[in-house]
Amino acid sequence: MRTDDLEALLDVLELRDGMRVSFHHHLRNGDAVMNEVLAALRRRGLKDLHLYASALFPVHTEAAACIEEGTIRHVTTNYVNGPVAEEIARGKLRGEFTMQTHGGRARAVLQGENAIDVAFLATPAVDAEGNGSGIYGAAACGSLGYAVEDHACAKRSVLITDSLEDFPVPGQLSASHTDHVLRLPSIGDPGGIVSGTLEVTRDPLGLKIARMATEVIRHSGLLRNGVSFQSGAGGISLAITEQFNDMLAATGTQASFFSGGIAAPHVKALERNLVEKLYDVQCFDEEAIGSLQRNTGHIPISAGDYADPTNASRVIKDLDIVILGASEVDTGFNVNVTTDSYGNLIGGSGGHSDTAEDSKLAIIVAPLFRGRTPLIQERLFTKTTSGEHIDCLVSERGIAVHPANDKLAGRLKAAGLPVVDIETLMQSAHAYTGRPKPITRGDAIGIVEGRRGDVQDTLYRKAG
Amino acid sequence: MRTDDLEALLDVLELRDGMRVSFHHHLRNGDAVMNEVLAALRRRGLKDLHLYASALFPVHTEAAACIEEGTIRHVTTNYVNGPVAEEIARGKLRGEFTMQTHGGRARAVLQGENAIDVAFLATPAVDAEGNGSGIYGAAACGSLGYAVEDHACAKRSVLITDSLEDFPVPGQLSASHTDHVLRLPSIGDPGGIVSGTLEVTRDPLGLKIARMATEVIRHSGLLRNGVSFQSGAGGISLAITEQFNDMLAATGTQASFFSGGIAAPHVKALERNLVEKLYDVQCFDEEAIGSLQRNTGHIPISAGDYADPTNASRVIKDLDIVILGASEVDTGFNVNVTTDSYGNLIGGSGGHSDTAEDSKLAIIVAPLFRGRTPLIQERLFTKTTSGEHIDCLVSERGIAVHPANDKLAGRLKAAGLPVVDIETLMQSAHAYTGRPKPITRGDAIGIVEGRRGDVQDTLYRKAG
Repeated sequence: MRTDDLEALLDVLELRDGMRVSFHHHLRNGDAVMNEVLAALRRRGLKDLHLYASALFPVHTEAAACIEEGTIRHVTTNYVNGPVAEEIARGKLRGEFTMQTHGGRARAVLQGENAIDVAFLATPAVDAEGNGSGIYGAAACGSLGYAVEDHACAKRSVLITDSLEDFPVPGQLSASHTDHVLRLPSIGDPGGIVSGTLEVTRDPLGLKIARMATEVIRHSGLLRNGVSFQSGAGGISLAITEQFNDMLAATGTQASFFSGGIAAPHVKALERNLVEKLYDVQCFDEEAIGSLQRNTGHIPISAGDYADPTNASRVIKDLDIVILGASEVDTGFNVNVTTDSYGNLIGGSGGHSDTAEDSKLAIIVAPLFRGRTPLIQERLFTKTTSGEHIDCLVSERGIAVHPANDKLAGRLKAAGLPVVDIETLMQSAHAYTGRPKPITRGDAIGIVEGRRGDVQDTLYRKAG
Repeated sequence: MRTDDLEALLDVLELRDGMRVSFHHHLRNGDAVMNEVLAALRRRGLKDLHLYASALFPVHTEAAACIEEGTIRHVTTNYVNGPVAEEIARGKLRGEFTMQTHGGRARAVLQGENAIDVAFLATPAVDAEGNGSGIYGAAACGSLGYAVEDHACAKRSVLITDSLEDFPVPGQLSASHTDHVLRLPSIGDPGGIVSGTLEVTRDPLGLKIARMATEVIRHSGLLRNGVSFQSGAGGISLAITEQFNDMLAATGTQASFFSGGIAAPHVKALERNLVEKLYDVQCFDEEAIGSLQRNTGHIPISAGDYADPTNASRVIKDLDIVILGASEVDTGFNVNVTTDSYGNLIGGSGGHSDTAEDSKLAIIVAPLFRGRTPLIQERLFTKTTSGEHIDCLVSERGIAVHPANDKLAGRLKAAGLPVVDIETLMQSAHAYTGRPKPITRGDAIGIVEGRRGDVQDTLYRKAG
């Protein structure tokens, strides 16, 4: 059906307790759709729903209320912070809590493991036949990569929009998979959709780390025509992307693709003809959205095309270099991006584990301290990504190289870069902060799934 | 399967006599695929195939041989000239011959009326998963509009390419509908794919007709912001398109879309920001292909999106103005574009009947004589498009307006344009050529289908 009436739509959806409902996170902290739909489900008195959200942000207060009241019993997501994170970390979720990776979620949806009953998909531009795009409309957000598999595989899929556009809207969501179109006055706040103005770090320590990471790339043996690269939207990552662009230009190197989440520095590379293609699974800023609107070399892709480990052609199988963050690292190079050292849920893998495993060179960039908490720990609160997939850690006091990558260590030493032992790095940090108290954990509250559905780690409540 | 071996592919396709096989015509007169596949089917001794080809060109000699030998028993197409046309006009086809419209064919494929067993789809760029595009590759041809429904609906679909490209190829043919990928050394001759360099007419008579048609548009009441327009690739049509562009610029009018087959003058309009979007079902020249490669406002669409009469959102339902040709017109404004006045098959409806019916203003442009054969006849050899859908005929001796469109006649007269009675126009032409001899026809050889599958007319052999 095509309607402007959420209640009329819900009437035809044959809702029942225990249903599995999904949402994507492309409207990020500007999303109005999840709150509005969940509030309506809660008013209807539904219970024990399983929420499949590709990510959960501070704006998603209604999901927290639904957990509190039992409307939602289980949560499966790739990334969570804000009130839902607090609710879960306090042990308020009655059922199962599962954290997946971006590639793992696509795999689980396609294989029917995440068996979604209804996908409620915020879609910035929809036409009368039910084709959908994120590139146009009042709440344009760019690529809808994390919506594509839900749209194709859910028993019922609803495109929720505030902008009906002329047929045919060319986009990632094909009408053949759309069951219903719901028009609301507004699906989101554009100010919250993009993560504010993303800024290249100006912090001297961040810049030092960025410069060192760029030197690692220069001497890695991977800087050649056809090189591929991925980086996120953190301040250090953006600085590295700008420096990488300049390095491509200065050395006359033509990159093949940048993948993953796309922001202004990636767009600049495309516009300077430094890279052939951007494979875009989500947009971080308005520059990325604008680029999708006008540049055919900027290609929106689905989560499955991006990172599904069972997709033999996935984009990141050809990825050379990825820049990743960390909240904790241990001396085995295992990485935590899910919680902090105190058990607060602060994020999740997203594409961290996927790209770390598939790339040839996975570089962790992080400062050695946040306040008085050291980055490197003897034991992680949560293990998100396996150390065997990490090649090096770049910090302000030097570069620790995973022992399995002798060759890289040799190249970096030959180039005069400060290669240090990760144990030494940890000890010197602990000498400054004092050795951290052994961590204490509360009850188990969920699991971290690897991209193939394996259990990577258990999630625990904060102690006390 | 994915193979470089046509015979190995045919082995797995469970071929049998009487099968329905389909091909599209986007490689036009440069197509190597249909000849190569049909020759292999003929060598295998298959009989009584039903050939569904969106169009047939002079290059398609093997289809003629297959008709001669009985490999092919039935032919359904939208447009035919060259050896297949000659073969059929001579009565050599043993079974049924059906001519559809572009929109009617999409409808018939989607509704299962054209129940295709195997679609052999020449695809200039294909990735390892079976996504296909016409925009890239050695034999790039642009939009693959007439392949989309075959690809989605055939029991088995084969993408045939000479260019395997990096995953994911963003394009009109989604891997989810691809059963097999066949790689051949070459799928076609780029020189024959585009229709040579299309030239705006320089003939003074053609230019006179073009100028008059442009004035019809100017005074039609449809020239306003949001106007939509379609024209073909004939010399007069191209001249009108250029003049229409200049009229948009001079009057500060912003067009909404141009649709159908796209050529250089349409691309120019997009690049001059005179029109917002090009909805492209097929490309006529390299400028159109290049534009698709770089301009996101240039949108490839499927035949069904374009013109399927059962698709309530079809692009041409919002079409204001279409420029169409004619080989014959009668005094009821019925149009023949299928045969000449002597029964030679020279083309077919393509989108003629579809756009004539859906547009607000359907303008036929044609010179009153071809050699000594007059355009306007008392009786058509073949009726392709119903006169009730035509608004006016623009010729070098004046503009005949369909009596149902009094308002248009009034507007044109008020603007001082030479509005003439179609009967008068015919008589004055016949005064010059002599009254044509009554046509004589041979046996019935097929039917012209309307876009909804109705019988529009019977096709006859040439007399004698």
